[in-house]
Amino acid sequence: MSDQSLVSDFKQAMQELAASVNVITSQHDGSRNGLTATAVCSLSMEPVSMLVCIHKDVQALAEIRASGYFCINVLSTDQQSVSDVFAGSTGARGEQRFLEAGNWTSSQSGAPMLDDALASVVCELEEINTSGTHSICIGHVREVRLNRGSSPLIYARQQYGTLTELPETEKAA
Amino acid sequence: MSDQSLVSDFKQAMQELAASVNVITSQHDGSRNGLTATAVCSLSMEPVSMLVCIHKDVQALAEIRASGYFCINVLSTDQQSVSDVFAGSTGARGEQRFLEAGNWTSSQSGAPMLDDALASVVCELEEINTSGTHSICIGHVREVRLNRGSSPLIYARQQYGTLTELPETEKAA
Repeated sequence: MSDQSLVSDFKQAMQELAASVNVITSQHDGSRNGLTATAVCSLSMEPVSMLVCIHKDVQALAEIRASGYFCINVLSTDQQSVSDVFAGSTGARGEQRFLEAGNWTSSQSGAPMLDDALASVVCELEEINTSGTHSICIGHVREVRLNRGSSPLIYARQQYGTLTELPETEKAA
Repeated sequence: MSDQSLVSDFKQAMQELAASVNVITSQHDGSRNGLTATAVCSLSMEPVSMLVCIHKDVQALAEIRASGYFCINVLSTDQQSVSDVFAGSTGARGEQRFLEAGNWTSSQSGAPMLDDALASVVCELEEINTSGTHSICIGHVREVRLNRGSSPLIYARQQYGTLTELPETEKAA
């Protein structure tokens, strides 16, 4: 497999990997930063921790490093516009993104929590490991807020979707 | 927030984090191993790499370390029984899991690829970093096989589901 076709096939494979859409936020010296991310995992149960993969050169990563905290906001289907703004589709950056989309409150750590997110998980930064183009931010969970009523916003195959329970017939397969 | 309620809230938050269901496989000294995992991310584009979080004490992790390769098989809705078997629900272990569910072929590295998985991505193990209860396996992508026809099998809220495209009205929200 040539390098070029490997990369092309890898990109297509990653489009098949469905995931919740999250907005990762931080606050440092009174300035708020955030970006949309799908590469987010539960990591450890003891201590409770999560990880998020962020491009190593983005400003949001520098802000997370400086503040020592980040908040993972798990979006609902009602928050597609928040995802778009924090993915940069409107051209807004930094504080402007928070003004354009969503209602935000400050966590104890300062990291912004999105009102009506399915879950907001505030993590204290434990370490950042860079591997290739991206950095893995590992954080210990310090604060959790839940709003579990709505449906999850999922991204796959280059489009937004939501979760539908499988019918019982398929479950039995 | 007490430690106990933090852990309980964290568990509930993680139920809201929807993700594709994958079976991670390896082969070492002629013996095949595999387990079901949802904590799987695309990591880097240059080099192309992925990560998967696996409990640090499971046999499958030892086998990945020994073989130096692992394959991430992204499941379709038709492969719920494969997910169940590799999650341990039938009590099968090691080679027996491969006999109970799915049709498997060997990748060039030896790591088993699941026929009709939406994607199978073979990675060469780059490093393993342990954090708390889990280890992060980082691998460089060496081989990709695609079968993109079916719907992705997704796990969230303690049940299986699949992806439904959002209606245009919600998209405009």
